[in-house]
Amino acid sequence: MKLNIAILPGDGIGPEVTNQAVKALKAIASEFNHNFKFTTADVGAVAIDKHNDALPDETLQLCKKSDAILFGAIGDPKYDNDPSAKVRPEQGLLKLRKELGLYANIRPVKAYKTLLDKSPLKKHIIQGTDISIYRELTGGIYFGEKQTSEDGDYASDLCSYSREEIERIAHLAFVAAEHRNHKVTLVDKANVLETSRLWRRVVKEVAEQYPDVTLDFLFVDNAAMQMILNPKQFDVILTENMFGDIISDEASVIGGSIGLLASASVGDKYAMFEPIHGSYPQAADKGIANPIASILSAAMLLSHFELHNEAELIRLAVEKSLKLNITTPDINSVVNTVTTSNVGDFVEDFI
Amino acid sequence: MKLNIAILPGDGIGPEVTNQAVKALKAIASEFNHNFKFTTADVGAVAIDKHNDALPDETLQLCKKSDAILFGAIGDPKYDNDPSAKVRPEQGLLKLRKELGLYANIRPVKAYKTLLDKSPLKKHIIQGTDISIYRELTGGIYFGEKQTSEDGDYASDLCSYSREEIERIAHLAFVAAEHRNHKVTLVDKANVLETSRLWRRVVKEVAEQYPDVTLDFLFVDNAAMQMILNPKQFDVILTENMFGDIISDEASVIGGSIGLLASASVGDKYAMFEPIHGSYPQAADKGIANPIASILSAAMLLSHFELHNEAELIRLAVEKSLKLNITTPDINSVVNTVTTSNVGDFVEDFI
Ligand SMILES: CC(C)[C@H](C(=O)O)[C@@H](O)C(=O)O
Ligand SMILES: CC(C)[C@H](C(=O)O)[C@@H](O)C(=O)O
Repeated sequence: MKLNIAILPGDGIGPEVTNQAVKALKAIASEFNHNFKFTTADVGAVAIDKHNDALPDETLQLCKKSDAILFGAIGDPKYDNDPSAKVRPEQGLLKLRKELGLYANIRPVKAYKTLLDKSPLKKHIIQGTDISIYRELTGGIYFGEKQTSEDGDYASDLCSYSREEIERIAHLAFVAAEHRNHKVTLVDKANVLETSRLWRRVVKEVAEQYPDVTLDFLFVDNAAMQMILNPKQFDVILTENMFGDIISDEASVIGGSIGLLASASVGDKYAMFEPIHGSYPQAADKGIANPIASILSAAMLLSHFELHNEAELIRLAVEKSLKLNITTPDINSVVNTVTTSNVGDFVEDFI
Repeated sequence: MKLNIAILPGDGIGPEVTNQAVKALKAIASEFNHNFKFTTADVGAVAIDKHNDALPDETLQLCKKSDAILFGAIGDPKYDNDPSAKVRPEQGLLKLRKELGLYANIRPVKAYKTLLDKSPLKKHIIQGTDISIYRELTGGIYFGEKQTSEDGDYASDLCSYSREEIERIAHLAFVAAEHRNHKVTLVDKANVLETSRLWRRVVKEVAEQYPDVTLDFLFVDNAAMQMILNPKQFDVILTENMFGDIISDEASVIGGSIGLLASASVGDKYAMFEPIHGSYPQAADKGIANPIASILSAAMLLSHFELHNEAELIRLAVEKSLKLNITTPDINSVVNTVTTSNVGDFVEDFI
């Protein structure tokens, strides 16, 4: 297969971890005789520094011409602590999601056998957890109208949703559930929010088309609790943008490290693959960043193009690295000399 | 001391647990020679059933005439699954908060020594946790304008904040931190939301008046993760309404049961005390509801009026009940016959 893959390393640890994923993809290409072409472009704080734009048009055009995008990470504390900054790295990511119509962010959460002891949660709580979170990614309060009064003493953000925005991701979630454990949990705050009540109404209707999938509802506050008390109760979680952001980061503790969690952001035309972790600037260039989330994002990319054997091989390589303790310090309490690229090299060689 | 206390038991397990708190308060009154007068009124689903109004005017007037309010719980699933319901129990609680100006909801989170094993989190993670969450309670997306289009296919909720709304609760949080571990963590989403950037700006200014308190910032997604990875890093958490709702319910897992967490909702004129748990209708009238959150809410009520010895005695009684396993099944794996009122009786007798 021929694939043009745009590489957007971004900020902080983004470049290091993305490099390892590219190594894995190159190994796959040579092993399975695929033709993968990689083109790199700037996004985020690095793009602001170079082009004064968090998403230069060149980068956007490259993404639109590519078959898939591999994204690193975004964010730089120098912007976070300047509330009046006019350009912010995150705008690059948000604009990318919006322009490419990547309305569904899919985040699998699994407890790896070899890592059960790494989690802050007790083993019997997480053992067997297997969740797929479907987070709406181009609507809600992230993209609603924002206002600040002239004197700066009042601000607002609008959260809005339309039926279509809910329907399209709901269908994806229900189809996924049909291939999994036949359960969708809608996380919302329908006892307070009008948008949540719209979600409930629309998702109930969509559910009727999937009679073999059970739909249940959970308020987001309760969901945040249930995720820790009993994560095994979940199969597919469906939720709006902001709640999905919070719940999926929270869920990362189940796996033992946020450095393990990959995600796919898909729309009707484009698809982007990215770790759910952030740019973690304190760790940049130290060789301690965990590349597994990025490598597993590459596996999700391959699955997206039905290259299931190839994806499986990457996953096997990752599991092997976990078993052999060829892992970065965040999940390795035995050997503390394994670097980001050591992990990448192992996965490459294994393939 | 003479105190008029309004009792609003509400829905589900609300009445049972509130009864136990009243027993404790009566015991305190007789032991310390106080004059507490209790008056009960309807709120929530029961109020809708009886008066077709989640917060009858009579109830509101009673609250305004009282020195303090003890609140039970609110909510009934028959309304949750009817997204088009015009009256909803939660409106009673929200209106009460708004009308009484209860802008700060204070939620202490502690790991009880005797319950360390009950938490889904590992002992070394939670041991020593002592957090006080300051959640803004009368602003944000809970109270912003809500819209639904005529065809019902579009909905919106407005999240807004003003400088004053942020300042007043920020001061409370910093004063609390001065008496605790001198650290305030502002939880927001300043990389996306305009309201969060206003929070950051205003809270930074307020912080200047408290030079011996350190202020740091955490994005809400990261906070949801940090709460589980390392809860001991927190002292006072300050946050807006919706984030506070999610983060504090999540934090309840640290104590081993949400049935332990009390809260105080305070404003410039009134104060209300309530468990953070919900109405838990499945458990109603079975004698299995944990009354400790409600009893500890009564202790917070006493502290509010500087009755510190009295509050301390209630807390002692609760700790004793935990030590002796006189607790409801949610936290009791040894004896499973202790009922809601058994716990209340023990606390009463102890006092
Ligand atoms: C960087 C930030 C804007 C982003 C988000 O909130 O969506 C990140 O947290 C994520 O989850 O991908
Ligand atoms: C019942 C509901 C409206 C309420 C809230 O979200 O504030 C509850 O969850 C709480 O935290 O007190």
